[in-house]
Formats: sequence, structure tokens, C-alpha cells
Amino acid sequence: MALIKTYSATAKKIGELSVETEARGFKIIVDEPVEKGGTNKGMNPVELLLCSLGACQTMAVSIFAEQLKINIEEIWMEIEGDLDSYGFMGYGNARSGYQNIRYHMHIKSDAPEEKINELIELVEKRCPVADSIKNGVKLDKPKITIVK
Amino acid sequence: MALIKTYSATAKKIGELSVETEARGFKIIVDEPVEKGGTNKGMNPVELLLCSLGACQTMAVSIFAEQLKINIEEIWMEIEGDLDSYGFMGYGNARSGYQNIRYHMHIKSDAPEEKINELIELVEKRCPVADSIKNGVKLDKPKITIVK
Repeated sequence: MALIKTYSATAKKIGELSVETEARGFKIIVDEPVEKGGTNKGMNPVELLLCSLGACQTMAVSIFAEQLKINIEEIWMEIEGDLDSYGFMGYGNARSGYQNIRYHMHIKSDAPEEKINELIELVEKRCPVADSIKNGVKLDKPKITIVK
Repeated sequence: MALIKTYSATAKKIGELSVETEARGFKIIVDEPVEKGGTNKGMNPVELLLCSLGACQTMAVSIFAEQLKINIEEIWMEIEGDLDSYGFMGYGNARSGYQNIRYHMHIKSDAPEEKINELIELVEKRCPVADSIKNGVKLDKPKITIVK
């Protein structure tokens, strides 16, 4: 039993390092700061990954709070991750991806602490982006079309 | 030997399901479509994850093409991923994250195919977002601050 939904997006180079990404008509410019060779028109891809995780967790808190009948007045989160720049450069054996991601949730609620903890456990288990990042996703070899 | 850099972002609930994310002053609104209970002000978190991957790969193509002295005139990518909605709902044993992500790169270049393949192999190995998603990242238990 499964209810598979396929999500899609595109990414297109529009400048030296700048990229226009799009999903369902919504566009986001991704770039690097000037000191890294970009033109600083937007956040970079690894920051975007943290935003994806933060947004998913925040939404999941809203959805599961309603299911558990917990009143939440405010939610905001800080997310941070450590990356060894040597990985991208190919020095040594460093991995190129994040080594560790941490997050700190701030919740304004009059619900008892046990209820909030129950909620957060559910969010941790069910958040699609957290599951993707924590447990990894099978990435197929890319299909490549070369245009002359 | 390591050159650790810590990246950070925030996410804040601003509506029913809508979330404002921010990194280095760049803001992105994340939301769900109306039929999923949102107000459709932006792409959703799992689409944002695909954009993060697409942007990272596109930038990596630009950077490594320069290192390998390959002339690339255009790059654009399609990215898609399959997600079992039952995972988020908690039905059965479905995982909540992506089961599989595929991508298709379109490259306009006069370089020989072997050089392009060499480039893409390097991108696959070194792209920080691809490595994070493919090999997984240690997510710490969240720190939670409850405000009454």
C-alpha cells in the first residue's frame, strides 16, 4: 500500500554561479557571495537545504499540533550545519556534504511540556525532509543530454 | 585536516502552514497549495529540497568545468523525486522522506562526450547537497525552548 507522489523542479544557470530554480511556477535565485565567485543574488544551495529542513519541521509542528489538539501560538527555528570545505575541494578524505545538522525550536504554547515533547517526537519521525536527510535517499545516476 | 564552516538559517511560522525562511538576509516563503491546507504563497519544503540539489549540481558543473577547461554554454536540469504520502500520515511502514531522486542534465557544449562524463563524475562525487542527501547527515535531537 503506497500513495506515491512525484515532485519536480528545474534549475538553470543564469550567470557565473547564479542559478534560477523553479517548482510549480515559484522561482528562487540561488547564488554564492562575491568572495566565493558569485554575485550574491540569493542564498547558496547548502543554506537552501537548511531552509528546506526548517520549513518542513515548522509545517509539521503546525499540522501535528492540530491533530494532537495542542495550541501553538508561535514557532520559530534556528538550523545550522557544519560542512568541511575541503570535501568540495577534494582534499583528503573529507566528505563534501554536511557532517552534522542541529536545530533549535522555539515554541510559544500553554500546553504542558510532555505534550510538546510528544509533538516533537512525532515531527522528528514524520518530517519528509528530515527523513530524507537523516536516512539518505537513493540518487540515480544522472541522465545527460549534450547539445552541440 | 579540515576547514569546517558552519552555515545557518531560520524558519518562522507566518500563517496557517506558511513559513518564512531566511539565510544571510535572503528570505524565502515556503507554503503548501490550497488543496493541502496552505495558501500557496511559495513552493513546499520537498520541492525546495529538489531546488537545493539542482542548484548545487548546476553550480558544481560551472566550477568544475572551469577547472577542467571545458567550455559550457548552457546548463539546465530537471529534478524529480518520489514520495509516499502515507509516510507523513503514519500509515503502514512507509518512510516519510523521498524514496528516490532522479535528475536529467542538459548541457550545451562543444566538448567531447568523454570530457563531459569526466566532469559529471566529479560533480556527482563533490556536490555538497548530493552527498548530504545520498549519504545522509547526522541530525541532532532538537533543542526545544518553550515560551509560555
